[in-house]
Amino acid sequence: MKTKAFQDFYPDDLAHCYGCGKLNEHGHQLKTHWDGEESVSFFTPESYYTAVPGYVYGGLIASLIDCHSTGTAAAAKYREEGRDMNTFPAFRFLTASLTVNYLKPTLIDKEIEIRGNIKEIKGRKVIVSTRLIVNEEICAQGEVIAVQMPEGMELGKPK
Amino acid sequence: MKTKAFQDFYPDDLAHCYGCGKLNEHGHQLKTHWDGEESVSFFTPESYYTAVPGYVYGGLIASLIDCHSTGTAAAAKYREEGRDMNTFPAFRFLTASLTVNYLKPTLIDKEIEIRGNIKEIKGRKVIVSTRLIVNEEICAQGEVIAVQMPEGMELGKPK
Repeated sequence: MKTKAFQDFYPDDLAHCYGCGKLNEHGHQLKTHWDGEESVSFFTPESYYTAVPGYVYGGLIASLIDCHSTGTAAAAKYREEGRDMNTFPAFRFLTASLTVNYLKPTLIDKEIEIRGNIKEIKGRKVIVSTRLIVNEEICAQGEVIAVQMPEGMELGKPK
Repeated sequence: MKTKAFQDFYPDDLAHCYGCGKLNEHGHQLKTHWDGEESVSFFTPESYYTAVPGYVYGGLIASLIDCHSTGTAAAAKYREEGRDMNTFPAFRFLTASLTVNYLKPTLIDKEIEIRGNIKEIKGRKVIVSTRLIVNEEICAQGEVIAVQMPEGMELGKPK
């Protein structure tokens, strides 16, 4: 049986993200799982997510690293507290900062593998180091500082 | 008469970027102009580019900062060399690194203003500092290290 992805545990009112929300029919619906101590996602981009023909545009790479990392941050926080991801209150993380180093052009017609490691968990903050791999080569290396979502924001009511 | 945007000068074979290519019918088609020493773009996101309901997702913010900054890098390089943007060879820049600090949630139902400043031009490298503004508040602050595209890549032939 296929295990549920981190993002499948997001409560419905937090599941609309274009990058990773299961309820966003226009979006990427990124799915992330544990693979030992690392988190892993796979994604095959549509051909129009191009930079120059043949290569993935940088914004998609940033998005994949961002959503992979915030999902990983949530899963890591559950794990740290010894809780299952289907328990409440739900952990959901926002990006405080994102850094991406583009190491080489990313071919667009291949499956992209995204792998994350937890660098630090401290209170409401989790730092995730994430790399993006195509054909076993690292094409981009990112770091996300993720912070737990403030209470109230999850109600979807902009202040 | 409305002036042409930086991106309108990209040669057709370099105009397919999802973020800023005028020939990408699926993409954002970001348009950037000079406003004195600063570059400026405006963008109103579709409602599905959401993070949690009411707010723009971080990947779009990263994309806008990225494409705004690489466009600005190209325009700055033309300006430095005293050349018009319709002259050849065309300058086109790739992102070597992107950093985004998300300062506050970005409301999704507003026009986003993106403003860039040149921090450094050195040989084939341009560093652009770019901020993203909604309702006159800075919601995100980014920095892009852009490098001139290697020859051959613009032919759209992945190696």
